[in-house]
Amino acid sequence: MRIAQIAPLQVAVPPRGYGGTERVVYELTEALVHLGHEVTLFATGDSHTSARLVSTLERAINFDPELDAAAYHLGMLEDVYGDANRFDVIHSHLDYLTLPFARRSGTPTVLTLHGDLATLNAQHAYPRYPNANYVSISNAQRASLPDLHYVATIHHGVDVQSFPFVAEPGEYLAFVGRISPDKRPDVAIEIALRAGIPLKLAAKLDHHEMPYFDEVIRPLLNHPSIEWLGEIDEAAKRDLMAHALALLVPIGWPEPFGMVFIEALACGTPVLTCPTGAAPELLEDGVTGYSSADKETLVVAAQNIARISRRGCRAYAQRRFDTRVMASNYLNVYQQVLRGEHLLLPWAKELPVANLDDPSDANDASDAYNTHHH
Amino acid sequence: MRIAQIAPLQVAVPPRGYGGTERVVYELTEALVHLGHEVTLFATGDSHTSARLVSTLERAINFDPELDAAAYHLGMLEDVYGDANRFDVIHSHLDYLTLPFARRSGTPTVLTLHGDLATLNAQHAYPRYPNANYVSISNAQRASLPDLHYVATIHHGVDVQSFPFVAEPGEYLAFVGRISPDKRPDVAIEIALRAGIPLKLAAKLDHHEMPYFDEVIRPLLNHPSIEWLGEIDEAAKRDLMAHALALLVPIGWPEPFGMVFIEALACGTPVLTCPTGAAPELLEDGVTGYSSADKETLVVAAQNIARISRRGCRAYAQRRFDTRVMASNYLNVYQQVLRGEHLLLPWAKELPVANLDDPSDANDASDAYNTHHH
Repeated sequence: MRIAQIAPLQVAVPPRGYGGTERVVYELTEALVHLGHEVTLFATGDSHTSARLVSTLERAINFDPELDAAAYHLGMLEDVYGDANRFDVIHSHLDYLTLPFARRSGTPTVLTLHGDLATLNAQHAYPRYPNANYVSISNAQRASLPDLHYVATIHHGVDVQSFPFVAEPGEYLAFVGRISPDKRPDVAIEIALRAGIPLKLAAKLDHHEMPYFDEVIRPLLNHPSIEWLGEIDEAAKRDLMAHALALLVPIGWPEPFGMVFIEALACGTPVLTCPTGAAPELLEDGVTGYSSADKETLVVAAQNIARISRRGCRAYAQRRFDTRVMASNYLNVYQQVLRGEHLLLPWAKELPVANLDDPSDANDASDAYNTHHH
Repeated sequence: MRIAQIAPLQVAVPPRGYGGTERVVYELTEALVHLGHEVTLFATGDSHTSARLVSTLERAINFDPELDAAAYHLGMLEDVYGDANRFDVIHSHLDYLTLPFARRSGTPTVLTLHGDLATLNAQHAYPRYPNANYVSISNAQRASLPDLHYVATIHHGVDVQSFPFVAEPGEYLAFVGRISPDKRPDVAIEIALRAGIPLKLAAKLDHHEMPYFDEVIRPLLNHPSIEWLGEIDEAAKRDLMAHALALLVPIGWPEPFGMVFIEALACGTPVLTCPTGAAPELLEDGVTGYSSADKETLVVAAQNIARISRRGCRAYAQRRFDTRVMASNYLNVYQQVLRGEHLLLPWAKELPVANLDDPSDANDASDAYNTHHH
């Protein structure tokens, strides 16, 4: 199948550091190429891929507030859709900016929604395009925009074999993620202290979270069993997770997906978290760790974490969250839209409809849309 | 003529306060309606217009950093282009986000470039659409992107009759604008002090310019002949300008247009400024005031400002910058694109071209673009 993958230009594929979406695009693209598909990856010029790479931009724009990502993404989308019939299917990992192009193209587009759909931006933009082929990354994600045309939920995957497996872990819990009140690092520290188990925190600390860090978190780091590692690289993160008794993420908001959950499980490391957002559909209480909204329950769970089979966690990740599973699910979706289900929808209902039984009418329709060709 | 006007959603039309683009859209729309055209204004729901108002959004989004303007503008653009054949011409005052829609529509679009084209965003986005029908707001503006397909330069206009005219001004100079190093309020103060003429400053002070204001400008405001008025409303601004000996704007960067220049001239108030950006093509040295890059020259010019005819300034504004002039220039451009010049350009050259002599081929072309209609 001839597949276009469109990655955001904020971060290279694969990301050097933080960049969940670009990591998923990388893994999916590699898996599709491995399966013999003809994949073209549209991404920054400093990306690496086994697919054909097409770049409109040499380097990632990152998150410079002076730069409007749309100004950069438009050019890339023109590259993709300007000659869309080179592809059987276009798979975009950009956001709503894809939709005006997708709507006006004869090649079907699949759009994976990577973000939180409760934001004002998402709430305003997506309902104008209810009939695109949306893929949600969890069922929980759909709650904020339940009426879009979802063709599937496909959970993210990782290359499970590439993660280290450690049968005999160290004597600590790990907190991995961003520092933010949503992620509740303070609750993680409280639970670890009450359980009497050391905690290592490895987290990205964004500039705008410095006041929260200084006021709430820093005073909690003085305890000898609490270790602050700051932001660490991918290899160090995998090592930290693989040797942990458990990943402790007592998250307090309905995150649409938890990449860190499946990375921990890929290492064989169980997860202690709260049953919010995507967690209940990604994890299995008593199999992949424990999940509870109650702190005391999580304290006891941490003390009993050895009851969870680390090999079982790894096997669970292999079965549900390997990139091959993700790639196979996406191929099913591509075939589904290619069989034409997407064409049956009243996708562009307010546009004039050509009567193809009458060539002069077909001419008119061609005219209405393509006058600039003549 | 059936004309769509597309205004940004950040600010209502007309703007309550700051909002140069929305002010121009308001004036142009009123003038076109007055001339008997069928105008539809796409803008926020809290806008006021004599045209038909179509709103996708109740209130202006302002410049909330949490909101992505693109998320809001996409819906409005779908409203316009989803049924574009209701219009003879579409005139957008949005930025590059208009272009993917314009490119795929049979109804011609005119896009007025309201911003600075030297920004990285503009430099990246516009060259991908070289053949759109661009209107520059000054010839100077084009310098940063000289190779776009400009159909005209059209200077902004104001309703000159609505500005007060004062034959006998007060004894002060006026600085009106935003506080920023670019606008050089410090130089304005220096010139006024050296000329021995009081200066009144009325300026918007954005949060991010507070350090500059506190460090550079505030210490200069202690002199008894320098008066700081802060941000004032439109009526107060017109009153301030009308009674001023001259508007003093020793601007230090090539601004693509100077709305404040033509507002002062509409009041009959001469302008003292520097020959940078659009100033040389908007002003006439010795007729509308004086222009020099040299401070001492501006000091002497301020002392001799009575030599400039205030009635002459008003007449100059009436002749060159009245909304009727602007509307007439835009109507010429609309007719120009309607005569089809825009269709002759290799605007979508990479798209397959339908051979309209062969109905089956036309069918194919219709198929490629409009499969979603069937």
